[in-house]
Amino acid sequence: MTHILVTNDDGIFAPGIIQLAKSLQKLGKVTVLAPDKNWSISGHKKTLHKPLRIRQVHLVDGVDAYSSDGAPSDCVALALLGFVKEKVDLVVSGINPHANIGNDVTYSGTVTAAFEAAIAGIPAVACSLDSPEDFNEELDYSTAGEVVVKVSEQVILNGIPPKTILSVNIPYLKQEEIKGYQITKQGLRIYRDALITRKDPRGFPYYWIGGEFPHAVPDHGTDFGALKEGYVSITPLQLDMTAYSMFEYLNQWKW
Amino acid sequence: MTHILVTNDDGIFAPGIIQLAKSLQKLGKVTVLAPDKNWSISGHKKTLHKPLRIRQVHLVDGVDAYSSDGAPSDCVALALLGFVKEKVDLVVSGINPHANIGNDVTYSGTVTAAFEAAIAGIPAVACSLDSPEDFNEELDYSTAGEVVVKVSEQVILNGIPPKTILSVNIPYLKQEEIKGYQITKQGLRIYRDALITRKDPRGFPYYWIGGEFPHAVPDHGTDFGALKEGYVSITPLQLDMTAYSMFEYLNQWKW
Repeated sequence: MTHILVTNDDGIFAPGIIQLAKSLQKLGKVTVLAPDKNWSISGHKKTLHKPLRIRQVHLVDGVDAYSSDGAPSDCVALALLGFVKEKVDLVVSGINPHANIGNDVTYSGTVTAAFEAAIAGIPAVACSLDSPEDFNEELDYSTAGEVVVKVSEQVILNGIPPKTILSVNIPYLKQEEIKGYQITKQGLRIYRDALITRKDPRGFPYYWIGGEFPHAVPDHGTDFGALKEGYVSITPLQLDMTAYSMFEYLNQWKW
Repeated sequence: MTHILVTNDDGIFAPGIIQLAKSLQKLGKVTVLAPDKNWSISGHKKTLHKPLRIRQVHLVDGVDAYSSDGAPSDCVALALLGFVKEKVDLVVSGINPHANIGNDVTYSGTVTAAFEAAIAGIPAVACSLDSPEDFNEELDYSTAGEVVVKVSEQVILNGIPPKTILSVNIPYLKQEEIKGYQITKQGLRIYRDALITRKDPRGFPYYWIGGEFPHAVPDHGTDFGALKEGYVSITPLQLDMTAYSMFEYLNQWKW
């Protein structure tokens, strides 16, 4: 039976991971090992300087679930290094409540948890929901859950090359409104951070990385373009970040 | 005059950054904004949920230096968003006391600080010293400092494409023993992590991500290959992680 390890970066009781734990049971056995707190925008981390605790929790009927005080990538490492005894066939991370597009992927705990699996040689899928920026109600993850099942099924069936993952972004639409699937490249994210300086009650300054929610350019063929056209965006990502196109240029420099 | 921002992930009083602050003054004005503690293996992070403090410190004569309680990438963001008033021409991160090779680059705070600069449109160089694994004495960063000056000079002179950085790994050799410079790709890092389970005084388990220091395969043309051959390794890295080679394969799947 297929065995799927599920994690996230929003913490084990986030609605997105509960949806994953429920939906992915259609494909086999599901085990959850996820952080006990929110690690959003925390990047790829390996905790070596202190030990980590793991606690069994009840999340969803029929699913073994554990929380850890490590980061998302630590959770994957702990599971694959042997805390989870049964062989893992697929790691699924998410569902993140916001899209992970453009350069978000270098910051995203959701994505780096998937990379940790790829480093360990296990296929992995990172899943994010493109919820509206100003949405304050409870998000509905049910469509996203079905999409993730479909993508995971394809990954199990076909396999993906070593050292790659799929980053899946799902538009916030009803199942019947989704137009289909597009294989996409990372688009252009425009960060609109601003430095906000304030003073504490004693007159000393402190600094917020503030500003507005990042923009994105909806070019056709990109992650954000697909979302805006009503498609699920499937972006294959690779661990190799070498800029091969620069070799010729750099070899011309006077070393 | 060229203005260089210097940061690291080992904390502002680490010997590697002191060397950078000293050496890079040959090329122009140097400003340091670095973490007040060690952030090794912490990945790309943006601190949005809490404000950050910045404190002026004395590091090296002639250099404005500040520490922050943010991560390395936060330090770069704070500086470039306006804490550092003067335009920055180049960001240099390091010198990390260990090589950042193969998939290390996805974990490395040294490298992700450089990526944060690239996202902001500023050329950046990440520098790491391939010190011997079992070396317990004080490291000599003087050769590495000279190498970084040379690489930085070339970057200022020639420029690098947007959304790329150079990751420089320097062999632990004397200046005259270094054979030259090689433009390299990321090599194969073999992580040898192991799960170590212990019990606390009350009998409850806790877990270390333990195991041995990672191996690397010294293939010619790779970062680690160059180091083992006695060369400085210059690996161009790009923010775009899209696996373009997978598009045809994925488009064949039954979506």
